[in-house]
Amino acid sequence: MRFTPSANDDRFYEFFSKAAANLVRGTELLNELALPDADVQSISERLIEVEHDSDAITHELYNKVNARDATPFDRADIWRLGSQLDDVMDHLEAVGSLLYLYGLTTLPTLPREIHEIVRVLDQQARVTAEAMPRLKTMTDLREYWVECNRLEDEGDRAYRMLLVRLFSGEYDALTVLKMKEVADELEAACDAFEHVAHTVETIAVKKS
Amino acid sequence: MRFTPSANDDRFYEFFSKAAANLVRGTELLNELALPDADVQSISERLIEVEHDSDAITHELYNKVNARDATPFDRADIWRLGSQLDDVMDHLEAVGSLLYLYGLTTLPTLPREIHEIVRVLDQQARVTAEAMPRLKTMTDLREYWVECNRLEDEGDRAYRMLLVRLFSGEYDALTVLKMKEVADELEAACDAFEHVAHTVETIAVKKS
Amino acid sequence: MRFTPSANDDRFYEFFSKAAANLVRGTELLNELALPDADVQSISERLIEVEHDSDAITHELYNKVNARDATPFDRADIWRLGSQLDDVMDHLEAVGSLLYLYGLTTLPTLPREIHEIVRVLDQQARVTAEAMPRLKTMTDLREYWVECNRLEDEGDRAYRMLLVRLFSGEYDALTVLKMKEVADELEAACDAFEHVAHTVETIAVKKS
Repeated sequence: MRFTPSANDDRFYEFFSKAAANLVRGTELLNELALPDADVQSISERLIEVEHDSDAITHELYNKVNARDATPFDRADIWRLGSQLDDVMDHLEAVGSLLYLYGLTTLPTLPREIHEIVRVLDQQARVTAEAMPRLKTMTDLREYWVECNRLEDEGDRAYRMLLVRLFSGEYDALTVLKMKEVADELEAACDAFEHVAHTVETIAVKKS
Repeated sequence: MRFTPSANDDRFYEFFSKAAANLVRGTELLNELALPDADVQSISERLIEVEHDSDAITHELYNKVNARDATPFDRADIWRLGSQLDDVMDHLEAVGSLLYLYGLTTLPTLPREIHEIVRVLDQQARVTAEAMPRLKTMTDLREYWVECNRLEDEGDRAYRMLLVRLFSGEYDALTVLKMKEVADELEAACDAFEHVAHTVETIAVKKS
Repeated sequence: MRFTPSANDDRFYEFFSKAAANLVRGTELLNELALPDADVQSISERLIEVEHDSDAITHELYNKVNARDATPFDRADIWRLGSQLDDVMDHLEAVGSLLYLYGLTTLPTLPREIHEIVRVLDQQARVTAEAMPRLKTMTDLREYWVECNRLEDEGDRAYRMLLVRLFSGEYDALTVLKMKEVADELEAACDAFEHVAHTVETIAVKKS
């Protein structure tokens, strides 16, 4: 089935594109953690702002879904895609907040596996942001979800090696517990990107 | 679309109302933890009884959904709402059981953030119990899910501050680990209430 | 509604049967952990192979679902069932990998509750593998999901007692953290089997 997007439909694609572009802002902020003299408090505060922007986008999307207007694909799928994009941001924001709240910024350096996972997240954000506008024509989406899932595997391996390091005896028990919380949020963000990809796949399969 | 509930439909609304009222019994029991000389063993045992009641209600609902009778909204949504209400109770029961099993009752006091989350849960239970009978007429449900989600945010902030306290060095590592398990169940209960609210929102949007 | 499976449909039932039979291979490998002088590295490596086989089966199923052919039940349910069977294997594989990566094999023995949960998983795998071929005729599925859920409860109780032991002071904090990761994967595998059972129940209810 081929289909012609209407002007009304365009609004939906814009929401998803804006939401995903906002995730790139989030992962760019986390990337700053790898800089020498990274200012974790400032990173955390800017992440909170970016998260508020995500909330506003999601809220606007929900209002539009709940309106009587026609939707370009199932209301439930639009809802899910919007809320899953928002979930990613919640985890990105949590990474910044926990690093700051737990005072992990006083460590000389964060384990390098943390930066590895952040780089994976940044790539996931970029492929997601590039894919969202293609929902309109349903073209070249397969390569996106395959790549997003491949990145999730890569993030998963980095996460496992991070835990091996944390449990190696290099850090005291409380520091391990704090870092573990941060690691779990990073891994949840990788997973959350995969959930987005999964929903895009479901939508694409229904439309094909 | 306006719709007229039938006598058969009424049975479904009663199930949801009973299930949610049972959650209030659960959160009231957790509230007792804040009392001086709280008897954690007794609280835990009574929570197990309340959980058995929830199981019985859910089981009866499933039987009714699986029967050939007409349902007031999608079978899948009824199933989901029933199982999500049951999930909340599982987490409430787990809080009591873990506090008791881990012997955390020998601590002079629990961190106050635990009581804060319990108060949030109690409010979530109350707004949920008040909303369930309104499923019948689909009126004033929006304020419920907005409030339930707002409470979840509040619980989330209290959970974060609880972890900051647990990781502060005030407790030894094993006590931290035990409390962390309890904290995670409390937070999962807050989330589980939000999932209920989300399903109610989905049902209401479909009916509107 | 009675229905007649077509030759095309048969292919779907074969996928589910193969995927579930593969899970039995996975739990049998975990059972070897209880043997004296268990070779954890070898168990872990063989689990990775079995997991790759699961991935291949799932991938083939997805291709078939995405093709234009008719499906014996909702595409979304086939998708979900396939991905949930695959999820179980991911957790089984993780158990082996973490035991090996964390060097837990140098402990004289693993806590017996770990073997208890493995036995529960093995039984869940067997009842699942026996049930999958019955999807074709939709007969005697109820006893499967009831038993699978009962086993999940049993696994849950063993998991709780495992945590009580881990937090008892018998192990140092880092060993507790490592074992906790393994325990969480075991419990996630029990849950993942329950999710499979839940989807089978949903499918059966729709068909009835």
